[in-house]
Amino acid sequence: MDNKVGIIMGSDSDLPIMKEACDVLEEFGISYEIDIVSAHRTPNKMFNYYKRALDSNIKVIIAGAGGAAHLPGMVASLTDLPVIGVPIKTKSLNGIDSLYSIVQMPKGVPVATVAINGSENAAILAAKILATNDKNILNKLTEFRSNQNDQVIKKSEQLQKQGYQNYLERMRISD
Amino acid sequence: MDNKVGIIMGSDSDLPIMKEACDVLEEFGISYEIDIVSAHRTPNKMFNYYKRALDSNIKVIIAGAGGAAHLPGMVASLTDLPVIGVPIKTKSLNGIDSLYSIVQMPKGVPVATVAINGSENAAILAAKILATNDKNILNKLTEFRSNQNDQVIKKSEQLQKQGYQNYLERMRISD
Amino acid sequence: MDNKVGIIMGSDSDLPIMKEACDVLEEFGISYEIDIVSAHRTPNKMFNYYKRALDSNIKVIIAGAGGAAHLPGMVASLTDLPVIGVPIKTKSLNGIDSLYSIVQMPKGVPVATVAINGSENAAILAAKILATNDKNILNKLTEFRSNQNDQVIKKSEQLQKQGYQNYLERMRISD
Amino acid sequence: MDNKVGIIMGSDSDLPIMKEACDVLEEFGISYEIDIVSAHRTPNKMFNYYKRALDSNIKVIIAGAGGAAHLPGMVASLTDLPVIGVPIKTKSLNGIDSLYSIVQMPKGVPVATVAINGSENAAILAAKILATNDKNILNKLTEFRSNQNDQVIKKSEQLQKQGYQNYLERMRISD
Amino acid sequence: MDNKVGIIMGSDSDLPIMKEACDVLEEFGISYEIDIVSAHRTPNKMFNYYKRALDSNIKVIIAGAGGAAHLPGMVASLTDLPVIGVPIKTKSLNGIDSLYSIVQMPKGVPVATVAINGSENAAILAAKILATNDKNILNKLTEFRSNQNDQVIKKSEQLQKQGYQNYLERMRISD
Amino acid sequence: MDNKVGIIMGSDSDLPIMKEACDVLEEFGISYEIDIVSAHRTPNKMFNYYKRALDSNIKVIIAGAGGAAHLPGMVASLTDLPVIGVPIKTKSLNGIDSLYSIVQMPKGVPVATVAINGSENAAILAAKILATNDKNILNKLTEFRSNQNDQVIKKSEQLQKQGYQNYLERMRISD
Amino acid sequence: MDNKVGIIMGSDSDLPIMKEACDVLEEFGISYEIDIVSAHRTPNKMFNYYKRALDSNIKVIIAGAGGAAHLPGMVASLTDLPVIGVPIKTKSLNGIDSLYSIVQMPKGVPVATVAINGSENAAILAAKILATNDKNILNKLTEFRSNQNDQVIKKSEQLQKQGYQNYLERMRISD
Amino acid sequence: MDNKVGIIMGSDSDLPIMKEACDVLEEFGISYEIDIVSAHRTPNKMFNYYKRALDSNIKVIIAGAGGAAHLPGMVASLTDLPVIGVPIKTKSLNGIDSLYSIVQMPKGVPVATVAINGSENAAILAAKILATNDKNILNKLTEFRSNQNDQVIKKSEQLQKQGYQNYLERMRISD
Repeated sequence: MDNKVGIIMGSDSDLPIMKEACDVLEEFGISYEIDIVSAHRTPNKMFNYYKRALDSNIKVIIAGAGGAAHLPGMVASLTDLPVIGVPIKTKSLNGIDSLYSIVQMPKGVPVATVAINGSENAAILAAKILATNDKNILNKLTEFRSNQNDQVIKKSEQLQKQGYQNYLERMRISD
Repeated sequence: MDNKVGIIMGSDSDLPIMKEACDVLEEFGISYEIDIVSAHRTPNKMFNYYKRALDSNIKVIIAGAGGAAHLPGMVASLTDLPVIGVPIKTKSLNGIDSLYSIVQMPKGVPVATVAINGSENAAILAAKILATNDKNILNKLTEFRSNQNDQVIKKSEQLQKQGYQNYLERMRISD
Repeated sequence: MDNKVGIIMGSDSDLPIMKEACDVLEEFGISYEIDIVSAHRTPNKMFNYYKRALDSNIKVIIAGAGGAAHLPGMVASLTDLPVIGVPIKTKSLNGIDSLYSIVQMPKGVPVATVAINGSENAAILAAKILATNDKNILNKLTEFRSNQNDQVIKKSEQLQKQGYQNYLERMRISD
Repeated sequence: MDNKVGIIMGSDSDLPIMKEACDVLEEFGISYEIDIVSAHRTPNKMFNYYKRALDSNIKVIIAGAGGAAHLPGMVASLTDLPVIGVPIKTKSLNGIDSLYSIVQMPKGVPVATVAINGSENAAILAAKILATNDKNILNKLTEFRSNQNDQVIKKSEQLQKQGYQNYLERMRISD
Repeated sequence: MDNKVGIIMGSDSDLPIMKEACDVLEEFGISYEIDIVSAHRTPNKMFNYYKRALDSNIKVIIAGAGGAAHLPGMVASLTDLPVIGVPIKTKSLNGIDSLYSIVQMPKGVPVATVAINGSENAAILAAKILATNDKNILNKLTEFRSNQNDQVIKKSEQLQKQGYQNYLERMRISD
Repeated sequence: MDNKVGIIMGSDSDLPIMKEACDVLEEFGISYEIDIVSAHRTPNKMFNYYKRALDSNIKVIIAGAGGAAHLPGMVASLTDLPVIGVPIKTKSLNGIDSLYSIVQMPKGVPVATVAINGSENAAILAAKILATNDKNILNKLTEFRSNQNDQVIKKSEQLQKQGYQNYLERMRISD
Repeated sequence: MDNKVGIIMGSDSDLPIMKEACDVLEEFGISYEIDIVSAHRTPNKMFNYYKRALDSNIKVIIAGAGGAAHLPGMVASLTDLPVIGVPIKTKSLNGIDSLYSIVQMPKGVPVATVAINGSENAAILAAKILATNDKNILNKLTEFRSNQNDQVIKKSEQLQKQGYQNYLERMRISD
Repeated sequence: MDNKVGIIMGSDSDLPIMKEACDVLEEFGISYEIDIVSAHRTPNKMFNYYKRALDSNIKVIIAGAGGAAHLPGMVASLTDLPVIGVPIKTKSLNGIDSLYSIVQMPKGVPVATVAINGSENAAILAAKILATNDKNILNKLTEFRSNQNDQVIKKSEQLQKQGYQNYLERMRISD
């Protein structure tokens, strides 16, 4: 059975953000499961998620949550798998509440926290973790970094060629 | 069996703060149980705390925690009892992390949050909740409020009599 | 006479938020009164609100206010009833001002603070308080929690069935 | 009867800060009354303070308070006298809570807020207000500003003469 | 010559906010002058503003500014008149920068700071200051407070009569 | 070869902000180069930028970046040229993250930080730096300051002439 | 050659914090290398660190840094290894600057961020990552979690036995 | 006459911080003048400082200030010289007030802001500015960077040789 990434989120309102993690994992050819698991509305489901993770051969968990975002930390306390936390941006506090709730874990129970709304980076981090023992994924990561570099270089060349005013004009049109 | 208040905290390092809640409850003659229950280090114990609360005739839960303070919210998600959260002051973020983690709960799962390190007020709030159906406690609350008022009035009289410089001097000596 | 919840707010501009508390209480079959009581514009009315609360058999007060949100704390200082404070989101400071003004009460005078704009949770907390002595409300709370759980489970099933892309598509349509 | 300044504070723990206001007013030869008036512990006294202010010929009120600092705003809502608010530094939130609770007043009820722990400036502001109709105080303010200027000029001259290393050395000794 | 209020602002982009101060002063029948005076773009004009203030019989200055809002503090350092500072909301920091720059003045040079964008309250505070020596303005302030109270009472009555749902509906229509 | 300013930014999404720096430099007749250099996506390009800066006779570098904005600080660590950092406003944290990442550099490696989104000021600062040894640019700066002053004076005159209501009306029309 | 963890920090002043990571890794029997690598003072060394990491069979990098903490993000941009960032507490901003600089990485370059000063958790997270492919470490993690649980349970038993006052007394003595 | 750096500060209480700028400039052999110039207590002196700067051949100004730190911005508005602002740490707000007051300057008037209490970096930045036209200073900067690098390399070697425990032990002793 393939090594998998488990993606969970506290509410389906987090899906527009968390879907970016799915997109990245598909791009990397990494298997994943995605589910809604609310620490506060489905505590039992959350409490048993680690068993399902083991059964599904999940090796890394990505958990997105907003506000008093307890999901990543609670799941981390119940499993030996690495848990990546995605603080979701909130209406009043812009996700600072989510960030503090996820990153400020006590000694003994780490959550690997990424940027507010950073689900894409959560997936790349999951890939980096799996790549510590998977040459195939490692090669894809190297290629990904190389592509990132090339895209910026190309944009830079366009900027030189067109001048900043034309470049800006085209950016506006392509929006 | 008496109505009780259940006091829990995430770590015994919170005890110097949480003890003030005990002192208040004793002053009010309210029964209580106090325990250490860590959301992250003893998730199973936490998960089953609500059962014990029911068995012990606990009517209100006071939960203190610091940092990514998940204890109050998680317990609130597992029981229909009112849960009062005490954000404990932290070294780096002064308890703003604790406050946000406790107060910013999602729709459906409230935690009655008091001030940072406000365990004394948590106990008074518990008393107010019990007093909604207990004349005896209600009377003690009224007396407590009256005493509070009288103490300030007495200090005010001392200040008028002594003048602010003498008053300050005596404050310094009695420290 | 029924036990009641008293809902007050500092301004009618808070009504779009505070109305959610009414909706929840109606759902729970709990009697309530709602009024506009401004700490700063109608200090006399506020000062006498506690008497009216006693006359109306109000057992829990919910007070919403924004900015230098003094209403919850002032009412709490004038009564032995538990007071739940709802910090209203503000234009410049996003409700952090309201939150601090409500939650950071001094020793002796607690306000049970919920999340910014969290009036729905204020009502649930009020229900939890009344349920400490009302089996009927307690049963409704248990049912409410169970429904919450079921709704997430159903959404989770839909997500598994449809896949995240279709699920997202339908979310967008139903908005 | 002389025009007076009324100084009030929420707790005698604010006195070490608020006394600086007394010192300044004495320096300016302005009459004042100082008292402890707690919005939360002595709401009735606070509520009637404005009457006493009128009886005592108080023209400006200085109110210091910390945390959910309701005193300045509540007094301002009860009187037509200008009220100056002094946010007292707090243990957890360094006085940001006090500042927001005092300065973010709603339309219609201003509080003239000074810096955190800025009771000295509150007194100078009171003097400036009285000076709008009192030549004697006005002259003292002009003199005060002139003295301030001269003191800095003198320090500047010392710094030039001694060099910064000697100057620092003497600062350390005189501490 | 009438006692006047001098209103200045750092930029004409502050005018939509500062105009509310003009409206209030006109309502109170208080004379005022309004001008654009930039601490950073017209430092000489700012530096000499205090002279013009004296010539125009200005008794209170209201100064609005945003960002590194130096105007209120600099003008306060140049005159014995009371200066009221209005922190203007900013794009990136929502006016927290303006607030800190205006309120955190050093010992000796107070600025009477009001809420972010609180120009209406700045005008009321100016009226309160003038009223310390002007019965006419004092009476208008008393009336203003009374009207404020009445308006809330009327809204409260409407809310009782109509019920919250109808009330909300009418609020939406009248927007 | 002319002295030049090198403008770099972490992403072409920063161009709408950074273009204002170009506009100012053109107004001042100062030569510049603009490029996209990402600290994280093109680390090699960034690492070698200082060589290109020397080859192009760049004397001052302006670097704009948002979020964990490492570009200005990293470039500053690799060159003896003065580096001006422009914190770009971000979606979740409004540019406070960018500001802290740019301004809080360790001892030994300064970045001259300007306001959030302050690319126009970055260009003026670059001009001030070049003007320390270029009379021509110095004269243009003096003229620029004088023009700034005059524009405010003209607006002030218009405000006096038209009255604030007409002035506001015309502002709205010309928007 | 053993899989290793590479620990780097921006300055030896971070060592008192980062040493806790060493202690944890030794407890888990995991090989590690520790070094000082400053993004700003030794940019070349930092730039080449990824090569050394590969040569040393390092599989996970832990990077601690304070202030404009560029080290973790820059190293992450240069390698496909997972990088864990430890924000070091700072004197003025308490590590909020470090936290934002480390966690708010742009799309494509994640840093697995832990709590401020959370180097112990960084090491546990590294162990969790290695354990995705190492049964031995996995077993130690399970044991570690079990021990954590037991320690809290023991403390809880002591608290029950001794009562909170005796417990507190002994805590004070053993400090 | 030598090119000079002008160092000013709002109060002699800033001298323990600002003296580090002097030390750096002496190390670089750069002439400087240091003085106390208070924006609020000596506005006239501040207003005329730019003339003295021109007379003394000052090419760069370093201005340190705390709280509502107006000195750097006001001086910047009065001169075409580049002004470097040093936000001084404050008691209540840790220098965030100083930082915002200095860095958030309006369009047209930049201040080159360094880290809170970063006077050493202010001096290095001044050196970098002067070095744009002074080979001698440029060489010293290159040497300074090289020395910085070497010191870290040496510490790194010591850490490897001694092991982290011995290294820490010696750090403690040499403190």
